[in-house]
Amino acid sequence: MEIREKKKTGPKPNPDTRKNIVQVGLKMFHEEGYSATGIQGIVEQAGVPKGSFYGYFKSKEEFGREVIDAYSERGLIKLKEILKDTRKSPLKRLEAYFDDRIEAFERLNFTKGCMFGNFSSEVADHSPMIRENLTEQFSAWSRIFEECIREAQERNEVSDAIHPASIANFLFNSWEGALLRMRAEKSKKPLLEFKRFIFGKVLV
Amino acid sequence: MEIREKKKTGPKPNPDTRKNIVQVGLKMFHEEGYSATGIQGIVEQAGVPKGSFYGYFKSKEEFGREVIDAYSERGLIKLKEILKDTRKSPLKRLEAYFDDRIEAFERLNFTKGCMFGNFSSEVADHSPMIRENLTEQFSAWSRIFEECIREAQERNEVSDAIHPASIANFLFNSWEGALLRMRAEKSKKPLLEFKRFIFGKVLV
Repeated sequence: MEIREKKKTGPKPNPDTRKNIVQVGLKMFHEEGYSATGIQGIVEQAGVPKGSFYGYFKSKEEFGREVIDAYSERGLIKLKEILKDTRKSPLKRLEAYFDDRIEAFERLNFTKGCMFGNFSSEVADHSPMIRENLTEQFSAWSRIFEECIREAQERNEVSDAIHPASIANFLFNSWEGALLRMRAEKSKKPLLEFKRFIFGKVLV
Repeated sequence: MEIREKKKTGPKPNPDTRKNIVQVGLKMFHEEGYSATGIQGIVEQAGVPKGSFYGYFKSKEEFGREVIDAYSERGLIKLKEILKDTRKSPLKRLEAYFDDRIEAFERLNFTKGCMFGNFSSEVADHSPMIRENLTEQFSAWSRIFEECIREAQERNEVSDAIHPASIANFLFNSWEGALLRMRAEKSKKPLLEFKRFIFGKVLV
């Protein structure tokens, strides 16, 4: 963990405080959006003085990048847990993953969506640093889907006519779009339609 | 056109001024996002005093809803022009529409995306008024896609095993997701992958 000390006047940076600020930022950015969330609100929620924020993070942009890392890290645990569970066939694992996510969004009353999508929509055009991080996260997640799809192809669950990387990208992007429509409609219908086409037409 | 007069002290509301403020809002919300754009910036760009904004619009939220209407109206012209052009087969029209959009996003250096998607991501959770408008816009646009897909089914260009409304929803949502990834990657690859799967696997 890299700790930047721009100000020598404040208290010594504390790794737990740093993690706590990132977790508060994750919650607030995900619920309210990037622009709607001010540093002032984050430090108040985290219970630290405003000045100390800049002892931990150079800028809101750099903080945003770290929040995306933390979001990705948390989500990858679930993704890998389900997609690498060899007790199920690869196709069943993919289906189990999306069923799990659909249930999770139902519990959230179809709000919040995916932070990668949210930041792509709101921040990517304005921050090369965050945009590059999003590119990396999309790639890293797509590769996990790709591995599972490749396995499904090897077991003849899915045709190998199309490269698993292409299928994985289309699947992931379509999911992001389904989440947008889910939020507009406050309904799981777009997610079920996603499943219907992905498992009925694409992963065949 | 409904003109609200909350303040009787300012100049008489002018329909051209009103339209101009909406056009400025459209440009700024699309480029910068909803939260990042303040009323102050809009009135400055539109060259009107801040007080007069509230002579035309009750709130930023109501203004946002009208901006979405204006965005939809403009986009529907292109959508209908291409999807109702009976000189081409329905499937060719659908392809022509997405080719046209891909070229347009290339000219924009893969920025901005679709305002329906942007507002779904940034605003839908926080404004029932805007969320309901997005639901209506998504439905209205999906119905145009649906009509064209139904025609394609009638001409046996596309299998009629799945209802054209479901196909239209999935197609539109997947496109929204492809636009998010396009913005993260600053690349047309996600749009080409969208076309490959939609025309190679879904519209078959």
